[in-house]
Amino acid sequence: MSFVAEVPVRFRDFDSFGHVNNAVYATYCEQARVQYFEEVIGVPLSDPHIVVAHLELDYQAPIEHVGTVDVAVEAGEPGGKSFPLYYELTFGGEVVATGETVQVAMDDSGRPTTVPESWREAIANQPLD
Amino acid sequence: MSFVAEVPVRFRDFDSFGHVNNAVYATYCEQARVQYFEEVIGVPLSDPHIVVAHLELDYQAPIEHVGTVDVAVEAGEPGGKSFPLYYELTFGGEVVATGETVQVAMDDSGRPTTVPESWREAIANQPLD
Amino acid sequence: MSFVAEVPVRFRDFDSFGHVNNAVYATYCEQARVQYFEEVIGVPLSDPHIVVAHLELDYQAPIEHVGTVDVAVEAGEPGGKSFPLYYELTFGGEVVATGETVQVAMDDSGRPTTVPESWREAIANQPLD
Amino acid sequence: MSFVAEVPVRFRDFDSFGHVNNAVYATYCEQARVQYFEEVIGVPLSDPHIVVAHLELDYQAPIEHVGTVDVAVEAGEPGGKSFPLYYELTFGGEVVATGETVQVAMDDSGRPTTVPESWREAIANQPLD
Repeated sequence: MSFVAEVPVRFRDFDSFGHVNNAVYATYCEQARVQYFEEVIGVPLSDPHIVVAHLELDYQAPIEHVGTVDVAVEAGEPGGKSFPLYYELTFGGEVVATGETVQVAMDDSGRPTTVPESWREAIANQPLD
Repeated sequence: MSFVAEVPVRFRDFDSFGHVNNAVYATYCEQARVQYFEEVIGVPLSDPHIVVAHLELDYQAPIEHVGTVDVAVEAGEPGGKSFPLYYELTFGGEVVATGETVQVAMDDSGRPTTVPESWREAIANQPLD
Repeated sequence: MSFVAEVPVRFRDFDSFGHVNNAVYATYCEQARVQYFEEVIGVPLSDPHIVVAHLELDYQAPIEHVGTVDVAVEAGEPGGKSFPLYYELTFGGEVVATGETVQVAMDDSGRPTTVPESWREAIANQPLD
Repeated sequence: MSFVAEVPVRFRDFDSFGHVNNAVYATYCEQARVQYFEEVIGVPLSDPHIVVAHLELDYQAPIEHVGTVDVAVEAGEPGGKSFPLYYELTFGGEVVATGETVQVAMDDSGRPTTVPESWREAIANQPLD
């Protein structure tokens, strides 16, 4: 995965077990996704034409102190109206979680629509490692 | 203070010290404020005509387990373009914090404006203990 | 699913699209999970012997205003060292999301261990609709 | 103020008005405070000997898009058992908020105690602009 967003851990991300709370990993993925959309697909933060329909996270190791989470993002082949993003979260040189979200493209009236050709091209042109 | 909003504590509100994080108290006040605006002043959640200009919190005791925070809210006398709200947060029969916010009324172009007469009346008519 | 936790939506749960942010659904499930563990399995909030290894959410409809999310929870058959929880989130009479988490039982030294017999019994005895 | 922590804004920090939520500013200050304690006073994140007793924030301009908040921190003269920290939050070259917190030093049994001499020295030696 050649696109990597750096997300600094905040003290507020920890829960009473002293670990980054599991829901916060979804926020780390979101932060990386927002950057991926802006930088790779060229769709700004404020664009309401994308809806997350599915989220999946596998937790492999806890994050127990502050530092930076590197969130690698890679898009999968778009289907008709949706496409997947895959995430690998690394902290201190160790993979701490992997994840996946499925995004659905929406038209102006809020109904699912075909993934725009410009998105497909941007995704196809994103270099992979 | 006769207006009280009940805000259940979430596990996510705790930080790694096992206490409700101090920033979360601002969210408890916000939640009570939203209810106060809807129920007392009659302004819906979605109204963009209110801006918080000042926040102040005094922490008196930690919240160390889940339960319900009772947030009492009382409005102070409106000045020209703003008015204060006072908060008292009680948990398990004990006052855990007090707070204050100052709200500014905004016109449609986003500039401070005189507090509407209807708000003044609603505030004045809110019974106090 | 006969166990239902009521989780009030907070203003802070919304994002700039005016919807409850998708990561917050994980927090709603967590809040229900904490209650399920305390009330059904009899394991307190502070017990560090449970680790979430997997999270999955399917979003079906946005939550666009405050109110209460009913989070129904049902446990699946425990495997050796883990067991699944299934969630159904309802808001305003409509299913807005379904989810699943996998919990792993940990021993005192933080290594995965067999799901305790008492948990299995509590799960088995939880009445289903 | 010569100590500045850089805190990247997250998409999750915005609320439904499209602004960074006012409670999140308290988290930005906390993040800067944690860094100040570690880097200037030499007290690690995990030290439970500090309690925030007071928080105050003045909001001057909204944060309406992602970017980095520079949080400048300066300590005031310690009193007997507490000392203040002052914050100035800058975004895009503009001061968006100022704040203050009061920290109380705690002994091992959780009672307020005299601010340690080493902290006083570290604070006194922190260069100011």
